[in-house]
Amino acid sequence: MSDLAFGLMQDRPLLIASLLTHAARFSPSREIVSRSAAGARRYGYRAGDVRARKWAKGLQRLGVRPGDRIASLAWNTHRHFELFYAVPGLGAVLHTLNPRLWTEQLVYIVNHAEDSVLCFDPDLLELVEQLAPQLQSVRHFIVLADRDEMPNTSALDLLCAEDILGDDDFVWPSFDERTASVLCYTSGTTGMPKGVLCSHRSTVLHALYAQSGVAFGLTPTDSVLLVVPMFHAYGWSLPYVCAIAGAKLVLPGAAPTAQTIVDMIHAEAVTLSSGVPTVWTGVFDELERSKRDLGPLKRGLVGGSAMPPAMRRRLRDYGVEPVTGWGMTELSPLGSFTSSTPEIEALDDGARDQALYGSAGRVLYPLEIKVMLADGAEAGPGVAGDIWVRGPCVASGYFRGEGGALLDADGWFPTGDVGLIDEYGAIAITDRSKDLIKSGGEWISSADIEKAATECPGVAQAAAVAARHPKWQERPLLLVVPSRNVMPTREAILHALQARLAKWQLPDDVLFVDELPVTATGKIDKKVLRNRFGDHLINSKASEETLREGR
Amino acid sequence: MSDLAFGLMQDRPLLIASLLTHAARFSPSREIVSRSAAGARRYGYRAGDVRARKWAKGLQRLGVRPGDRIASLAWNTHRHFELFYAVPGLGAVLHTLNPRLWTEQLVYIVNHAEDSVLCFDPDLLELVEQLAPQLQSVRHFIVLADRDEMPNTSALDLLCAEDILGDDDFVWPSFDERTASVLCYTSGTTGMPKGVLCSHRSTVLHALYAQSGVAFGLTPTDSVLLVVPMFHAYGWSLPYVCAIAGAKLVLPGAAPTAQTIVDMIHAEAVTLSSGVPTVWTGVFDELERSKRDLGPLKRGLVGGSAMPPAMRRRLRDYGVEPVTGWGMTELSPLGSFTSSTPEIEALDDGARDQALYGSAGRVLYPLEIKVMLADGAEAGPGVAGDIWVRGPCVASGYFRGEGGALLDADGWFPTGDVGLIDEYGAIAITDRSKDLIKSGGEWISSADIEKAATECPGVAQAAAVAARHPKWQERPLLLVVPSRNVMPTREAILHALQARLAKWQLPDDVLFVDELPVTATGKIDKKVLRNRFGDHLINSKASEETLREGR
Repeated sequence: MSDLAFGLMQDRPLLIASLLTHAARFSPSREIVSRSAAGARRYGYRAGDVRARKWAKGLQRLGVRPGDRIASLAWNTHRHFELFYAVPGLGAVLHTLNPRLWTEQLVYIVNHAEDSVLCFDPDLLELVEQLAPQLQSVRHFIVLADRDEMPNTSALDLLCAEDILGDDDFVWPSFDERTASVLCYTSGTTGMPKGVLCSHRSTVLHALYAQSGVAFGLTPTDSVLLVVPMFHAYGWSLPYVCAIAGAKLVLPGAAPTAQTIVDMIHAEAVTLSSGVPTVWTGVFDELERSKRDLGPLKRGLVGGSAMPPAMRRRLRDYGVEPVTGWGMTELSPLGSFTSSTPEIEALDDGARDQALYGSAGRVLYPLEIKVMLADGAEAGPGVAGDIWVRGPCVASGYFRGEGGALLDADGWFPTGDVGLIDEYGAIAITDRSKDLIKSGGEWISSADIEKAATECPGVAQAAAVAARHPKWQERPLLLVVPSRNVMPTREAILHALQARLAKWQLPDDVLFVDELPVTATGKIDKKVLRNRFGDHLINSKASEETLREGR
Repeated sequence: MSDLAFGLMQDRPLLIASLLTHAARFSPSREIVSRSAAGARRYGYRAGDVRARKWAKGLQRLGVRPGDRIASLAWNTHRHFELFYAVPGLGAVLHTLNPRLWTEQLVYIVNHAEDSVLCFDPDLLELVEQLAPQLQSVRHFIVLADRDEMPNTSALDLLCAEDILGDDDFVWPSFDERTASVLCYTSGTTGMPKGVLCSHRSTVLHALYAQSGVAFGLTPTDSVLLVVPMFHAYGWSLPYVCAIAGAKLVLPGAAPTAQTIVDMIHAEAVTLSSGVPTVWTGVFDELERSKRDLGPLKRGLVGGSAMPPAMRRRLRDYGVEPVTGWGMTELSPLGSFTSSTPEIEALDDGARDQALYGSAGRVLYPLEIKVMLADGAEAGPGVAGDIWVRGPCVASGYFRGEGGALLDADGWFPTGDVGLIDEYGAIAITDRSKDLIKSGGEWISSADIEKAATECPGVAQAAAVAARHPKWQERPLLLVVPSRNVMPTREAILHALQARLAKWQLPDDVLFVDELPVTATGKIDKKVLRNRFGDHLINSKASEETLREGR
């Protein structure tokens, strides 16, 4: 028996570098296109693999060892793409940083991760100079730039990416597939962001299932425009999925405008583009302004927030198939994806649309889902409850144990989302128990706003909730119970908050209430507040002002 | 450092039963349709999961333990589908037997695998009765039939499948993903077939990559007709891939005629059908005869042998996209799949077809390929050599060590195929070093024929080679160097071979030659013989007779 217990298949680990090796071998000249102010730079997967190996060799020479964390503070460029492979490829961990985070959060995150190298785009130098004095572990600052793009002066000792590249004789090493690969911090309900640490196994498995016919399902004839930032949940894994498929990958560089996005869709024959709703809204405005269309685009992926019905109609008006999904950093990140069924196809147009897009799509194997009611029973089909997940691409905990033990006795992870499995077998997210506000694809912690608000004079109690917003999908709305002594003003509170919060975290409005509703367990009942005040920004002048300011 | 070496993702194994659990949860009513003489039987994935768990419980009650081998001798039916999940799901090994093998081979295989249970379709009772007296390990014979379909008399003590099913409270157990899952014997160059023993890990990983957008890429709107037998390399993994996708699976039962296939394509809204070239030839004949079309069919997968150019034209005439691939049991089994590229799409029609179908398609991640020249150097693009493969879904050896150590020092497995990577990054199989004849999708060992031939009076030397055949793609042709004393006749040799070979292994013709060409190392040079005599059956009357006999 003992010789028969295991299958007789090769013991080969699933490693990230093998994705690029595959693309280099079988799609050597399929392009990675990287836009910058200087124009579009392009090379094939074979050249990309050579550059990634040169990076790995160069980082090794700098002293980077397996397990070290290497931070990137960068937009979607070819060098960031190279780091996506080079760093995990040599056994180190790529830690993607979101440049839009508050400085204090970035300092916390880099120190918490003990990043030893920080690679950043030249336009982020000012931010890095602000961070640097407080960073405790960073030994090297590498600018992701050509030699002639290097900043002339800086208080920091800067290395140029092109100078650190080593020889091309680096061979990707083999190691345990459970080795840590990429690290991404995500906002929690309270306090500082927490790190999700993927393994090579989870990253590669996720890329395989994200490339399923029921998800991205790319082919070599696809050209993918990655508008979603690569620091957002591994760029929704598309830098890896494209390599499996041998698909073209188009990287729009720093802060692409809607005009740039439309230009690239036409110039690079883009068939799939991805973005949060705000990005798509901008694209539609640009199309109207310029009287253009979406040309070669076949599929438009709207993610990061629920796809508004008007958005899917507009995509379809332009001949583009709308697709959406649900995910989170902790899921690697994709959990579900739009996919039709024979039952849905049999409906008439309106009902078909509602059935197809009334959910966040079908759950992707091997993700397991359970929907739990408050009483501990499992919810039946169509009944909403707390969503728990399990699987080889789901986090078992956060980096360095932050947040404590998360899994239940059977190994399930609480997503913080509330939802149901609908009659078509798809998952619908109906609410969230995790108390966050999602503004233009970025998470804002209501707890952070509340903590800052209660430090303002005249504030007895404060609750920040997500209010629907025509441009940002959601913006924070602050509800304040005034103290008995001092009646504060809206302006005074907003002014006081400016010292404590980043500009984009500031509430769009402040409303005064006599009391805050509470749940049975005495917590502020955010659900009641969201129901009552959810449309406040849409109905009020405040939102119009925000739009005019172009925030 | 040590706490940081591994990613913080859940330690969940990849297990076959989870594929069915996924389909049962999210595609509960998507159908598995099983044709029998009594008509089509249909149920949803949820019911299929219940039946598979009842099977697992029942087999446990019969004494089946983890690691035991359970043989199936069955066509494509719902019960065979259930066994595909039930047996590996409980930790045992499903051993699929090819009923078309020679009795002596079946006996050898069952005894070699030490199968403890044999599950078989009722129409194969006579074969099982022939085998039974020589089977050393089989303790239970289970007929895959309803109670009223049970044979009335048999020398064997037969169990009815429906009687052995247990309760539906069986819960799929969790165990190491490297545990053996399915076992399939494959013909080698010499002697008896050898067993390929997959693991849960390799089977699930293979299903994930076979479901990639560059391979099957199924969606829930697909309906898959599985014409390829489930005992042929795990039914090309489609019973597993369909579960991931939530696609409908249509099983045509015992010996479907071309008329049945066309009927089912229409009745079950089939979008993808799979078969060896011989099957498709029959379908085209049926379509001409009945003046029908292929209705809902979108893709026609031609596998098992190279797709003849005329076949892809005829598929396209019927509005069906031809797809093909390359694989072998040792690869789990899919190695490549037709997929276009922008370069191919830019060609004009004729050149496009040649580029797309001149190869066996694009190599599928995570399969690694190296093409080696005779001098030990790696072949460049476009240059043919021996194909070696490596990956987590590739065999490391055969069951019980048959064939010895196969892998080279770097862990590569020799496929026995000769081929190249073409200018579009696709793999083209140009020849094979493994000396087999592929007749209608079944392998025939030339070594077996040669061994039998040299035992015939008057035969000094014998070489069996594959000759092209209008119906079977290839049939064996025997070349004989007569002995000096006795000049044998064609008829005498064929007659003598009948006692030593199964009917379908018999050469279609015998030719006498003065000598056989040899290679530099003194081996018979089959390549020269195939070049010289490859068209003999097409040019000779022998093939017409075979066709008329309907063999």
